[in-house]
Amino acid sequence: MRDVARMTALDPASAAAALRAGDRRALARAITLVESTREADRAAAEALLAAVAAHAGGAARLGVSGAPGVGKSTFIEAFGLHLIERGRRLAVLAIDPSGARGGGAILGDKTRMAELARRPEAFVRPSPSGGAPGGAGRRARDAVTLCEAAGYDAVIVETVGAGQSETAARDLSDMFVLLVAPGGGDELQGVKRGIAEVADLIVVTKDDGALAGPAGDTAAHYAAALRLMRPPTPGWTPRVLLCSALERRGLDAAREAMEAFARAAAPAIARRRAGQALAAMHAELRELLQARLEASPAVTARRAELEPRVTAGALPPSAAARALVETFLAAS
Amino acid sequence: MRDVARMTALDPASAAAALRAGDRRALARAITLVESTREADRAAAEALLAAVAAHAGGAARLGVSGAPGVGKSTFIEAFGLHLIERGRRLAVLAIDPSGARGGGAILGDKTRMAELARRPEAFVRPSPSGGAPGGAGRRARDAVTLCEAAGYDAVIVETVGAGQSETAARDLSDMFVLLVAPGGGDELQGVKRGIAEVADLIVVTKDDGALAGPAGDTAAHYAAALRLMRPPTPGWTPRVLLCSALERRGLDAAREAMEAFARAAAPAIARRRAGQALAAMHAELRELLQARLEASPAVTARRAELEPRVTAGALPPSAAARALVETFLAAS
Repeated sequence: MRDVARMTALDPASAAAALRAGDRRALARAITLVESTREADRAAAEALLAAVAAHAGGAARLGVSGAPGVGKSTFIEAFGLHLIERGRRLAVLAIDPSGARGGGAILGDKTRMAELARRPEAFVRPSPSGGAPGGAGRRARDAVTLCEAAGYDAVIVETVGAGQSETAARDLSDMFVLLVAPGGGDELQGVKRGIAEVADLIVVTKDDGALAGPAGDTAAHYAAALRLMRPPTPGWTPRVLLCSALERRGLDAAREAMEAFARAAAPAIARRRAGQALAAMHAELRELLQARLEASPAVTARRAELEPRVTAGALPPSAAARALVETFLAAS
Repeated sequence: MRDVARMTALDPASAAAALRAGDRRALARAITLVESTREADRAAAEALLAAVAAHAGGAARLGVSGAPGVGKSTFIEAFGLHLIERGRRLAVLAIDPSGARGGGAILGDKTRMAELARRPEAFVRPSPSGGAPGGAGRRARDAVTLCEAAGYDAVIVETVGAGQSETAARDLSDMFVLLVAPGGGDELQGVKRGIAEVADLIVVTKDDGALAGPAGDTAAHYAAALRLMRPPTPGWTPRVLLCSALERRGLDAAREAMEAFARAAAPAIARRRAGQALAAMHAELRELLQARLEASPAVTARRAELEPRVTAGALPPSAAARALVETFLAAS
């Protein structure tokens, strides 16, 4: 990774040019660069991002979530191949907000989307295998920017199904697509309901063979539930679709929904992107400040002096915190 | 509140002396001072906390949580009166981590614990009605310190039942007490299970009248579930008790459990308090830095310049964040 980083760092302008010309290896190297946590790489990454910023923003950004086993990679591969048949180029980014804490290593594994990954019109990127936890959102956002600058028409941000990771997919996308498997009961409560409420499109997978009946029931159930919910995106009424990746059915309707959404919800998408960018700026700001604080030798020395008094109960944590902030700002 | 703050600010030493002498009005004023978000009050609050720090740490700290309707205030009042009968003094602090966002206004309402609040051996403090969200943990921690300096033998930190507020109670206490109502089904899953797993003591309330049967079943159910869980506090095996506040039954067993816990888990309690204090210091540090950043005129000016470019997609959020951090540190 050091060599890769140095290569790119030497010349952000030619790295940007190679990436914009559709060189997938240049794109892969650029993403590796923005994922790097080395300080020198950060400067190079920002130079590169600045060089391509004007060419970003042109893709349809799709966040795709769903519980494990729902058939996410199978759907994404089939949907991606369908888009390619219609003359589109697409990038697939897997994100794992848990950072280095494991569990998401197989997300976006190229072997899961082997056919799609082989196509020159597609770019499939697995989730970063490590890196600083907390920075995952920033790294994924920069990767979306690079994919857009590389001219992909659609960028799919893929995550595991519930809680924090689903939020990360929404924070990076225009349209949130929830995949659900056939069956799974009649009740739509708690986390499940919460995710359905923010979905712009619900795709019931595995609508084939013995599951075709249950898939129809599940679709009807979600459609009924959606009618009682407030649509998450002004200008757009959420849809429920049935899909069989195996039999390549429902892909056309999914593409049509993606295109209709982009037209119908354009003002909402613009507002959403602006809000996402500001939120990302504030999150990054907090992380940078924290990193600077932790890297300050003056703070480290003062902490070594204060922490024993705090743990012994002799100094209120709030007083110690204030002293450390003063030390930090005085030394900066 | 301004007058109160000024009075205390003028003389932290005599405020500390009055508080230590058992003057409940002095304690109430001191808590109002540490809850204040005015900068001048912060300095006075820290002087006061520094003056009493050496006298804090002596109470048994109990975190008490439970879902709405479980009978929290009824239990706490009965338990408090029982402790008083046995010669103890206790303070009850209600915390509402949601800060000013409402919903917790009735927590710790003195009218709910009228009999206890009238006793000179008790101090009952409702949750702050407003203030900066996020600082609730720090304010509650400082209030515990003040109650301990005032000589209370036990400090009960009371919160609503699930999620974030329950975490806040645990972050401030030695022993986590979960109240559960009779009935409520056989399954112990999700959030409910997560809270039971961290409880040192589970009290099934309303063990009287028609609910006595269900209460026994619920206690047996929790006891069976606890046997399959890893105890949260080294040295202590969690207990399940039945209690009727109405008939004043089970209070003796609860007090006995509290005392046995303090003896059996003493090393774990010391480690827990040290860890809580450090975590509080780091949380306060982040909040102070954020507040300083937001108060910086240089940052405000630079934000006004950068934010439109970020929302327009012309500047990566990460680059804007870095520029703001540089501006902040250069101007400090």
